[in-house]
Amino acid sequence: MTEYQFKVRWGDTDAAGIVFYPNFYKWMDEATHEYFTAIGFPTSALYTEQQIATPLLEANCQFKSPLLFEDHVTVRSSVVELRKKVFKISHQFVKDEETVAEGYEVRAWTSFKEKAKACPIPEHVRDKMMPGHADAIKS
Amino acid sequence: MTEYQFKVRWGDTDAAGIVFYPNFYKWMDEATHEYFTAIGFPTSALYTEQQIATPLLEANCQFKSPLLFEDHVTVRSSVVELRKKVFKISHQFVKDEETVAEGYEVRAWTSFKEKAKACPIPEHVRDKMMPGHADAIKS
Amino acid sequence: MTEYQFKVRWGDTDAAGIVFYPNFYKWMDEATHEYFTAIGFPTSALYTEQQIATPLLEANCQFKSPLLFEDHVTVRSSVVELRKKVFKISHQFVKDEETVAEGYEVRAWTSFKEKAKACPIPEHVRDKMMPGHADAIKS
Amino acid sequence: MTEYQFKVRWGDTDAAGIVFYPNFYKWMDEATHEYFTAIGFPTSALYTEQQIATPLLEANCQFKSPLLFEDHVTVRSSVVELRKKVFKISHQFVKDEETVAEGYEVRAWTSFKEKAKACPIPEHVRDKMMPGHADAIKS
Repeated sequence: MTEYQFKVRWGDTDAAGIVFYPNFYKWMDEATHEYFTAIGFPTSALYTEQQIATPLLEANCQFKSPLLFEDHVTVRSSVVELRKKVFKISHQFVKDEETVAEGYEVRAWTSFKEKAKACPIPEHVRDKMMPGHADAIKS
Repeated sequence: MTEYQFKVRWGDTDAAGIVFYPNFYKWMDEATHEYFTAIGFPTSALYTEQQIATPLLEANCQFKSPLLFEDHVTVRSSVVELRKKVFKISHQFVKDEETVAEGYEVRAWTSFKEKAKACPIPEHVRDKMMPGHADAIKS
Repeated sequence: MTEYQFKVRWGDTDAAGIVFYPNFYKWMDEATHEYFTAIGFPTSALYTEQQIATPLLEANCQFKSPLLFEDHVTVRSSVVELRKKVFKISHQFVKDEETVAEGYEVRAWTSFKEKAKACPIPEHVRDKMMPGHADAIKS
Repeated sequence: MTEYQFKVRWGDTDAAGIVFYPNFYKWMDEATHEYFTAIGFPTSALYTEQQIATPLLEANCQFKSPLLFEDHVTVRSSVVELRKKVFKISHQFVKDEETVAEGYEVRAWTSFKEKAKACPIPEHVRDKMMPGHADAIKS
């Protein structure tokens, strides 16, 4: 599990005075990038050096309490499913010890070299995504 | 069912050359606002006159094909569940007759008069949301 | 001069109930793309076929009246300066006959083929950008 | 002068592989909020307790070098003009000791209690905005 911290910005709010909901997906995306940096594979290098990115197959979020301007929030992220070319990463949004939202993303390991094409997640990346479990789950 | 049409803007794309995925939720939000306008309840009037908005409980999207800069897209929206204070609206993204994404939002009819508080969806609104079915489903 | 029309979306507002100001630049960007489409050079084709884009050197906006959710706005755009590789395009935001904001962008005609590199605006494009004036101004 | 640091996010980029320019204004806005927090007046408290915000009269930015995904950037902000109800704050974007962009915002101290209305910047705020110079400049 990795943790990503952010602060709600003025531009994240809407006329109801709370966060405009698509921003939660922006933060899940940021948390996933931070996750890969934390396990040793910064996505900027993946994209620049290998033209690998991880576009979405599905994303879901459940909203439990609204977030307000300048709230400090932690996103706890962990990979909960790991298939050959696809993984599912869950994100828990926590503010003051309270879970304010819970979501997940399903993403495909994808080469953008020519036409976008899903490809197998390399072994050394899998090992870091689910340490100790990679063998069991990858089939 | 209502239809909302938009064009993918340059700012909607990311460095992989495709739409940055949180924008799909922005478009679902826009489509829901257009839906209420189409059935006779523009959300601008709802918010200004009654301080009613419809914040999210959950949102989901499945992505089937990437969208590119200047793609023309139609979102087909319809209410598929209608409870006392909560409704579920589905959104189908179509480009050139092909479904490129499918999502839904679960929203609560909410007064922002003082503290945000869910409240019953009025009868005359329900009637327009699921014509002919409102009685059966609302319990 | 070209005209681009848009409607203020819920997500464009902030907690003060008015448009979050960086959105005006998003709309200037959209208006510039529409401008090129209108004069016969859709920027999607320019980028896909020639890897030409027009990144910014400068952008300015003066805000006269706030915009609100669901306001209908017209942006009137015209090229007011045309140099060898650089042009300045002005944008006037009009709502109900009133000018609510006025801005401009200075952009460079740029090839992204390898390293980003400014290059001369082709003659047939110049002719459309300032019909009748291209010769006088381009030196 | 205050400093605000951020990292370019994937969602900040566009299909040309560089930052979509309106994001620079988003970051200037964030830097201004951080500025007020740093001098002792968090804008969240100003808005919640007094319904004071600082909407824009004008914003400008000059772009010298593009920013890329995961660039680390510092924004150096300082108030350079202080009038009765209006101030101008400059923002310098620095990456690896190089100035990549320079901008400013002109903002009005505004009450949103009923109708939005500019009002005088309070003395104790002025003192922190331009220490030692407030008297000379405020007339």
